[in-house]
Amino acid sequence: MKFCLIGAGRAGLVHARNLKTRIKTAELAALCDANRETLETAGRELDVPALFADYREAVRQPGIDAVIIVTPTLLHRDIACEAAAGGKHVFLEKPMALNADQCRQIIAAVEAAGVTLQIGFMRRFDEGFLAAKEILDSGEMGRVMIVKSTGRGPGLPPPWIYDIAASNGVLAEVNSHDFDSVRWLAGSDIVRVYAEAANFKCREVADQWPQFYDNAVVNLRFADGTLGVIDGTCPAHYGYDARVEVLCENGVLMIGSVQQQGLSKVLCDGSIVNRAVKSWRHLFRDAYVAELEHFIECVRQGKKPRVTGRDGLKAVQAVVAANQSILQGKPVEIGGCE
Amino acid sequence: MKFCLIGAGRAGLVHARNLKTRIKTAELAALCDANRETLETAGRELDVPALFADYREAVRQPGIDAVIIVTPTLLHRDIACEAAAGGKHVFLEKPMALNADQCRQIIAAVEAAGVTLQIGFMRRFDEGFLAAKEILDSGEMGRVMIVKSTGRGPGLPPPWIYDIAASNGVLAEVNSHDFDSVRWLAGSDIVRVYAEAANFKCREVADQWPQFYDNAVVNLRFADGTLGVIDGTCPAHYGYDARVEVLCENGVLMIGSVQQQGLSKVLCDGSIVNRAVKSWRHLFRDAYVAELEHFIECVRQGKKPRVTGRDGLKAVQAVVAANQSILQGKPVEIGGCE
Amino acid sequence: MKFCLIGAGRAGLVHARNLKTRIKTAELAALCDANRETLETAGRELDVPALFADYREAVRQPGIDAVIIVTPTLLHRDIACEAAAGGKHVFLEKPMALNADQCRQIIAAVEAAGVTLQIGFMRRFDEGFLAAKEILDSGEMGRVMIVKSTGRGPGLPPPWIYDIAASNGVLAEVNSHDFDSVRWLAGSDIVRVYAEAANFKCREVADQWPQFYDNAVVNLRFADGTLGVIDGTCPAHYGYDARVEVLCENGVLMIGSVQQQGLSKVLCDGSIVNRAVKSWRHLFRDAYVAELEHFIECVRQGKKPRVTGRDGLKAVQAVVAANQSILQGKPVEIGGCE
Amino acid sequence: MKFCLIGAGRAGLVHARNLKTRIKTAELAALCDANRETLETAGRELDVPALFADYREAVRQPGIDAVIIVTPTLLHRDIACEAAAGGKHVFLEKPMALNADQCRQIIAAVEAAGVTLQIGFMRRFDEGFLAAKEILDSGEMGRVMIVKSTGRGPGLPPPWIYDIAASNGVLAEVNSHDFDSVRWLAGSDIVRVYAEAANFKCREVADQWPQFYDNAVVNLRFADGTLGVIDGTCPAHYGYDARVEVLCENGVLMIGSVQQQGLSKVLCDGSIVNRAVKSWRHLFRDAYVAELEHFIECVRQGKKPRVTGRDGLKAVQAVVAANQSILQGKPVEIGGCE
Repeated sequence: MKFCLIGAGRAGLVHARNLKTRIKTAELAALCDANRETLETAGRELDVPALFADYREAVRQPGIDAVIIVTPTLLHRDIACEAAAGGKHVFLEKPMALNADQCRQIIAAVEAAGVTLQIGFMRRFDEGFLAAKEILDSGEMGRVMIVKSTGRGPGLPPPWIYDIAASNGVLAEVNSHDFDSVRWLAGSDIVRVYAEAANFKCREVADQWPQFYDNAVVNLRFADGTLGVIDGTCPAHYGYDARVEVLCENGVLMIGSVQQQGLSKVLCDGSIVNRAVKSWRHLFRDAYVAELEHFIECVRQGKKPRVTGRDGLKAVQAVVAANQSILQGKPVEIGGCE
Repeated sequence: MKFCLIGAGRAGLVHARNLKTRIKTAELAALCDANRETLETAGRELDVPALFADYREAVRQPGIDAVIIVTPTLLHRDIACEAAAGGKHVFLEKPMALNADQCRQIIAAVEAAGVTLQIGFMRRFDEGFLAAKEILDSGEMGRVMIVKSTGRGPGLPPPWIYDIAASNGVLAEVNSHDFDSVRWLAGSDIVRVYAEAANFKCREVADQWPQFYDNAVVNLRFADGTLGVIDGTCPAHYGYDARVEVLCENGVLMIGSVQQQGLSKVLCDGSIVNRAVKSWRHLFRDAYVAELEHFIECVRQGKKPRVTGRDGLKAVQAVVAANQSILQGKPVEIGGCE
Repeated sequence: MKFCLIGAGRAGLVHARNLKTRIKTAELAALCDANRETLETAGRELDVPALFADYREAVRQPGIDAVIIVTPTLLHRDIACEAAAGGKHVFLEKPMALNADQCRQIIAAVEAAGVTLQIGFMRRFDEGFLAAKEILDSGEMGRVMIVKSTGRGPGLPPPWIYDIAASNGVLAEVNSHDFDSVRWLAGSDIVRVYAEAANFKCREVADQWPQFYDNAVVNLRFADGTLGVIDGTCPAHYGYDARVEVLCENGVLMIGSVQQQGLSKVLCDGSIVNRAVKSWRHLFRDAYVAELEHFIECVRQGKKPRVTGRDGLKAVQAVVAANQSILQGKPVEIGGCE
Repeated sequence: MKFCLIGAGRAGLVHARNLKTRIKTAELAALCDANRETLETAGRELDVPALFADYREAVRQPGIDAVIIVTPTLLHRDIACEAAAGGKHVFLEKPMALNADQCRQIIAAVEAAGVTLQIGFMRRFDEGFLAAKEILDSGEMGRVMIVKSTGRGPGLPPPWIYDIAASNGVLAEVNSHDFDSVRWLAGSDIVRVYAEAANFKCREVADQWPQFYDNAVVNLRFADGTLGVIDGTCPAHYGYDARVEVLCENGVLMIGSVQQQGLSKVLCDGSIVNRAVKSWRHLFRDAYVAELEHFIECVRQGKKPRVTGRDGLKAVQAVVAANQSILQGKPVEIGGCE
C-alpha cells in the first residue's frame, strides 16, 4: 500500500519512519509539507523523491492509496475531506478537528467517498491498554466507578496552541488521548465536564494569550453515572507521563508507569535512580506500528477500523466542553445523543 | 501523662493500644463510651479499671491530664469544649467537627482554658509525607502546580454517615485526611471546590438516603492558584489506599503506594501477586504512635502542636463546600480569610 | 540481503518472522529443516517457496547472502563451517558449539572465507543491558565487585538436552546468555567456576539420564578477581526470568525485572496482580530485531559485529567447565589465555 | 522484667532504646560496657543509673532478670555462660559464638541453669519473612529448589573483624542472618559450602590482613538436596540491602526490596529517585521490638523461643565452613548430624 505523509514535522516523521523501516506491507511513496525546508529534509532522510508543498496536489496523485495527516489541527478538516474526495484512505492524527461540526464533515466525506478513516488514538493498540480493556469487558472487575487519566507532555507547547480558540489548547493537543481512553475504558460517553486551568510555566505568553493554560484538571461525568478525572500538563519536563487508573466495584486497574523499565541504578549516596519515560515515541513505539498495520489491514479487507471518526468526534466534543468550562467557571453539559 | 479515651470503638482502640503498649511516657488511665458493652470489653482487653459511660463525668476526673476523642463527629464539639472546660488537654480525631462554627467554638474553648489541642491528622507524622513536605519546603521542586490525593477505605461506611447532613459523609469520614494533606503540601488554602459524587456500592440505602454517595471526585482551586483533585471511595474492598501526587514546576513527588512492601509471590500461571495495604492501622502504625508522642511532648513543653485547630477547621470548611457543590451542581467558593 | 534460515523450529521462526515483517532491508529467501513437516509448515506460514531439507544444498545456493543457524547445538559446527565455505555470512544462535575446539573451527572457517560471523547474544542489543554497559564503561560506578545473573526458562527442557555430554544441558541451552552477559558486563574473562546442580522437576528422566539437572547454581571467579554467580532453572513455569545485578564499588545496577510492565490489577481480596514476563520472545522482541539489523549493517559495511566468535567461544568454555565441576564436585579452572 | 544490656555500642543501643521507649513490659535496669566512656554516655542518654564495667559483676546483680549480650563475638561464650550461671535469661546477638564448640558450651550452660536463651535473628520476626515462611509451610509453592540471599551492610567493617581467625569476618558479622534465613526458609540444614571471596574496598588492610575479604559469594547445598547461594558485601555504602529469593517448584517468593517505601521523586532531567534502605535499624525496626517482646513472653510463660541456641549453632557452623572453603579453595562438607 502506498502512503503519502501530509505534515512532515516531528510527529509525522514517527509514522514515516515506521512505514519506511518496520512495515513491509507499506511503501512511503510521497511526502507533503507546506514548509519547503521541512519537506526537503524529510525527503532526504527518508529517501522519498515525490515531494509536495500543496496537499491538494498530493491527494490527487494516482499512485497514492492512503494519506497520513499530521498537520496542525485547524487544517485537518480540509485536508481529510479533500483526500477522501480524491479517493484516498485517511489515517488522521488526533485531535480529529477543532469542533464537532468539522468532525461530522470529515465523517460525511469519507462515507461519501467510501474510503477508510482511522483516528490516531494509538493507545488502543498498546499492550497494557488492550489488556485492561479486555479485563473490563470480561466483567470480572464489575462496573467502572471512577476512571482517572494523567497526560503530561515533556516539551514546551507549540506556539500555535497559545490561541485556545484556534487550537483548543493543551487539553486538545496533549490530552485528546486521555479523553478517548477514559471513554473507551468506561464504555460510556462523557456528558458533563468541569475544568480548572492555570498557566504556571509559560508566564511570558500570558499577556498576549491570557486564556492560555499549561495545566488543567477536568472533572468528568459519564452517561451511565461513572465519575472521572483527567489532569493535563505541558510541559512536564521530566518526560511523557501517561497513566490511567480504572476503579471498579471489584478492584482497580492501573495502566502504565512513569518508569521506563529496564535498568535501576543504586548510588553511593543511597539514591535509587530510574529513568522516566522520555517520550510518547518510546512508550508507544509498538502501538504506533500496530495502529498503522491495523489501518492497512482494514483498508485491504474492507473492515471498519477499531478507532472510528465517531471516536474522534466524541473526544473533540469533550475537549471543547472542558475549554468552555474553564472560560465560564461552571460545569458544561455535552448535550445531544448520536 | 494520664489519658482518658472517649469513644472506645475500633479507631479509639488504636490509640488505646498504642498508649498501653508502645508509649512509655503515657498511661491509659480511663475509658469512656456510651455503649456499656463496648466500654466493658475495652476495659477488660486493656486492663483499665476506670470506666465511664458519660463523658461529662470523665472529663471532670482529677487524675486525668488529657482526653483522646474518637466519637462520631456530631459529638466532637460538645465533648471537646467540656474537656477543655475541665482543664484537660484535647487530642481530637478528624473530622474536627460538623461545620466551621463548631470548629471555632472548640478553638475558643481550648484557648480560654489554656489547654493543648491537636487534631488527628496522623499523615503529617508519616515518614513519606514528612519527606515530601521537607523537599517541597526546600524549594528544589519549584512551585506546586497540581496536587492529587486518593483516599479509599476498605470497609463499608458506618450507617451513621448515610445522612450527609448529620455527618458530611464519605468526604468527611474518609477524605478529611486528603483535604488536610493537599492543603499542607500545597502550602495554600482551598478557595473553590467542584465535586461529582455517586452511590455505586451501597444501592440498598439509596431509597432512604438519596444524597448518600460512596464515590466522589473533587476538583480543587487553592488561594495561590494551585490546582488539585481529591477522589474518595468507601468501600474499596481491596484495602486502604492513600496516595498523593504533587506535581511541581521541577518534577513530581509521589507519596505512598497501594502495595504493602515485604513480599512478592510469583506463581506458575505467570501471575505476580503482592498484597495491597489492608488498613490505615497498618499503613500509618508508626505515625499513630508518633502523633501521640508529639502531643505528649507539646503538652509537657507547652509547645503548639504541629496540627492545630485551624488545620482542623480548614479541612472541615472544604468538606462542607464539596458537599454543597454535589447538592447544587456547581462550584462553591470557600469565602473569608482568617 | 537474502537470508536462508537453517532450523525452522520455534526459535528459528522468531528470526524468520522478524525478517519477513519487520526488517525492510532483508529478504527471507529460503528455509532449511531436516524435518519435512516443520519445513513445509514454516514455508506456508512465511510464504517462502525455496525449501531445503539438506543444509549442504542450501548453503550452496547462489541467491543466498547469509544463513541464520538455529539448529540443535551438535550441528552448529558442521553447518557454520559449510556455510562459510559456501561464502555465506553466518548468524549463529547460541550456544556457539559443543566445545572450544568446535568454536575454534568455526572461527577459522569464517576467517578463511572472509565472511561475517555473529553469535545470537541478543541481550547485548537490549535497551536495559546496553544502558548498563554504557554506565559501567563510563567509570562512574567504579570497579565491578560481584555480578549476578539469573536465567530461567518457562518451558520443559527439550529431550535432546537430557544427555549432558551431547548438549551441555540447561547451563548451555538456557544460561549461555548469562555466561555471556556476566563476562561482557564484568569486562573480564571467567577463570574458575564451581557449580552445584539438581534435578527437581524432571524426575522421570533421572533413571535414564542421571546426570541431567534442571537447576544449577554456579560460582564464578573472573580474571581480574571479580566474583560472580549464575543460577539457572528450566522449567520455571511462571515465565522467562532474566535479571542481572552488577554490584560495583559505587553502587549497584539492576537490569531487568520479573514483571511485564503495562498493567496492574488490584482485586477485592487485597491481592495486587501483575504479569510475569512470559517469554524471551516478548522480553527481547526489539533486541531480536536489532541484532539482525546490526548483522546486516556489519555485512554491508564490512564491519566486525558487536558479538564475535570469540564471545561465543568464551561462553562455551565456561559452560563446559561448569558441567565438569558438577561431575567432579570441585572448582574447575578455565586455563589458557587467548 | 528487668534487663541489663551488656555491650552498649551502636547495636546494643538499638535494643536499649526499644526497652526504654517501646516495650512497656520491660525495664532497662542496668548497662554494662568495658569502655567507660561508652558506658557513661549510654547511661546518660538512657537515664540508667546502674552501670557496670565488668560483666561478671553485672550478671550477679540480684535485681536483674535477663541480659542482652551485644559484644564482639569472641566474648559471647564467656558472658553467656556466666549470665546463665547467675540465673539470668539470655538474649544473645548473632553470631552466637566463634565456633561450634563455644555454641555447644552456651547451650549446655543455659540448659543446666534452666534459663531461656534466644539468638538475635530478628528477620524471623519481620512481616515479610514471616509471610514467606507461612506460604512455604502451607505447601502451596511446592518444594524449595534454590534459595538466594543477599546481605550487604552500608558501613565499613569494624577493625576487630579484619582478623578472620578471631572473628570469622564479614560472613559472620553481616551474613549470619543470611545463613540463618536460608536454612529456616529451606527447612533443611546446610551440608556443603563453596565460597569465593575478595577484598575490593579495604585494600589498605590487605598487607596486614591478607585473608580479610569484604565481598564473598557462597554456594550452598542443603541436606535435602536444595541449592542455595549467599552473597555478602561490606561496605555497600548505598545502604543496607537484605533480599531473599526462594525459588520453588510452583513459583518464586521475593522477600524485601532495596527501596525504602514511601516517596518517589521525579526530576526535570527525567530521573526517578527513590531512597535505598539506609540501615538494618530502619528496615527491621519493628522486628527488633517484636523479638524482644517474644523473648519476654517466652521467659514469662516458660516457652521455648522461636530462635534457639541450635539455630545459632547451625549458622556458626556454616560460616566457619565457608571461611574454610575460602582458605582451602575447595568445597567443604559440614559433617555430623545433631
